Amino acid sequence: MYSDIQCLNHRESSIRKFHCANPVFICVISYTETCTVPGITIAGASPDLMKYTSAADSELLYYGRCRCIDGPPITPDGKPTPAIISRSAIVANEIPFFIVDAGSMIKPLVPYISFNLEHGKNIALGSAVDLNEVKKGFDYGILLGNHLSKMSDLVILGESIPGGTTTALGVLRALGVSSELKVSSTMPNNPHDLKDRIITQGFTNAGIRSGDLKNAPFKAVSAMGDPMLPAVSGIAAGVIDSGGKVMLAGGTQMTAVLAILESMKRPLDNLCIGTTTYVANDRTSDLVAIAESLSVNVVPIFALNLHMEKSCIDGLRAFSRGYVKDGVGAGGVSIGSILKSSGRINGQDLLVSTENEYNRILLNHAK
Amino acid sequence: MYSDIQCLNHRESSIRKFHCANPVFICVISYTETCTVPGITIAGASPDLMKYTSAADSELLYYGRCRCIDGPPITPDGKPTPAIISRSAIVANEIPFFIVDAGSMIKPLVPYISFNLEHGKNIALGSAVDLNEVKKGFDYGILLGNHLSKMSDLVILGESIPGGTTTALGVLRALGVSSELKVSSTMPNNPHDLKDRIITQGFTNAGIRSGDLKNAPFKAVSAMGDPMLPAVSGIAAGVIDSGGKVMLAGGTQMTAVLAILESMKRPLDNLCIGTTTYVANDRTSDLVAIAESLSVNVVPIFALNLHMEKSCIDGLRAFSRGYVKDGVGAGGVSIGSILKSSGRINGQDLLVSTENEYNRILLNHAK
Repeated sequence: MYSDIQCLNHRESSIRKFHCANPVFICVISYTETCTVPGITIAGASPDLMKYTSAADSELLYYGRCRCIDGPPITPDGKPTPAIISRSAIVANEIPFFIVDAGSMIKPLVPYISFNLEHGKNIALGSAVDLNEVKKGFDYGILLGNHLSKMSDLVILGESIPGGTTTALGVLRALGVSSELKVSSTMPNNPHDLKDRIITQGFTNAGIRSGDLKNAPFKAVSAMGDPMLPAVSGIAAGVIDSGGKVMLAGGTQMTAVLAILESMKRPLDNLCIGTTTYVANDRTSDLVAIAESLSVNVVPIFALNLHMEKSCIDGLRAFSRGYVKDGVGAGGVSIGSILKSSGRINGQDLLVSTENEYNRILLNHAK
Repeated sequence: MYSDIQCLNHRESSIRKFHCANPVFICVISYTETCTVPGITIAGASPDLMKYTSAADSELLYYGRCRCIDGPPITPDGKPTPAIISRSAIVANEIPFFIVDAGSMIKPLVPYISFNLEHGKNIALGSAVDLNEVKKGFDYGILLGNHLSKMSDLVILGESIPGGTTTALGVLRALGVSSELKVSSTMPNNPHDLKDRIITQGFTNAGIRSGDLKNAPFKAVSAMGDPMLPAVSGIAAGVIDSGGKVMLAGGTQMTAVLAILESMKRPLDNLCIGTTTYVANDRTSDLVAIAESLSVNVVPIFALNLHMEKSCIDGLRAFSRGYVKDGVGAGGVSIGSILKSSGRINGQDLLVSTENEYNRILLNHAK
């Protein structure tokens, strides 16, 4: 019934535990100046356009077209944003969603939940987010999560923040989680050396070494993270506090959320990660290994096969060749959509929806 | 079972139609410079503090205390904000809620859904809200309403905007709805003459007469309204478009929302108004008469008896003497709380909760 969804790390774990009748998707948008380091990401057509990416993604989810930029958010050589997959999954099963603004630079032209946070600085500085902002992001997240859990039986948490895998790595290392050469990238050639240089510089400027902030997760985020991380961590904690279930929708970035929650001694039982097989199969990163490096290795990681290698559209086939891979909650919200359908639809159906959506969006923008 | 709830205008209408298992409360906060006209409202301790009222109400709903001002929002002579009632009703039955910011001056220190609207000007100018802002408020409302209806079986829409009854009257008259001497006030001595003078001035400046904008509701709001009205109208329309049900939580202000929706030929079947008996019994206004003046008189108006004349707290007894009466969705969300409990609780129970809340809030602020 759910043959396109596999659990990567716990054989006995079943996706059925996360079955849901009324999931909600929350996309947390943010910005870190880390993304302006040349070569660090391709989540935007140019470094200058990077600050529009998360706003453009939000607009795409709502309208099927972007308003703050002319075309849809694409990589320099034409790979589309994963928001196209997310939108298809949302539309396929009428999944309600909210945008949470946690420090984006350009505000999307949609209604959004404001956490009133400043954007993050380059983590090479060693002081990326003001500590009060980190706390505020987490606290507001708790408040929102409390409410969401009363309205939904599965809260699916995704993100859109260019450069976010690098900040996630910074936080993982500050927390002492073994993650070298293991975080993912939007590019098939993962720039591990560059990420490492930025983080070493950040550690030097912050006067810390790996693991020094093991028991100070807010300080770890403040030194080496971004504003998305405390917001997502807070929402997840708020949902779970109120007895709800959470799917962290994303790849290696979401292990930083797990590490933050674990460091805070928060319960992780009703939590899972949902992503795509393109993250799971990525030879330049290792999602499962990072999860295993956490002291409490209980969170199941589910990966969805979207069969994109079979797509008739080159930009979508690129996902299966290691480009983009996941983001904007694409894998998780697709899993949510399949769960909500009780298995009536599968990965292949979502691929067809995504292809239709892709063509519709190109047409929308050509008008 | 629901003996404290009576329908004021349609004998055959039953509150059972609006029975709900998972209601959500939406409080739309906003600001109009109309509130700075001396003598027009007491929704704030002083004219200068009026711009804090809706932010303070939002904080009270979330935290049980205000953060942007020192004490809770009160009238100059100590009558408490109706947000105290709303919070009690929310807490009594764990009703999830969201704040929507539609042009407030001071932003609350809570997570809120931003519609990114400017605050409204004094309607005496005859051009209160930019027409594009009116459209945006309505459009964003539709988007939000669509999502809310997927998560909730009753969307309860309240407001916090000082001076809002005057702008509502301005819109009703621009739309040609007979409403002279019929809109409510926060004060027992309803300043009808003053409201009339402001509106006459606005009409002169806008170059319109009563009823001129009967078929142009956005223009009516733009000339004589406030940013809350298109936002609430849009959310209501979005919920109903998606097959959901709406309770407009408030007094005479909400008839302006009905008039806007009617002028747009929107269906009104799954809509009701929920308020307190203090609005219903007000001799200085006539909620039912305004509703009857609409061409389509199908919307039931439910009023809840909160038995506040029996309260041991003077500030709460004042409600039954014609002060404040309703606001911040107090009546509607109390009805929602009773409905969610399937009648396990009644108006009297909510009075006790409100008294406890009142004492707790005073204590919180005294700390």
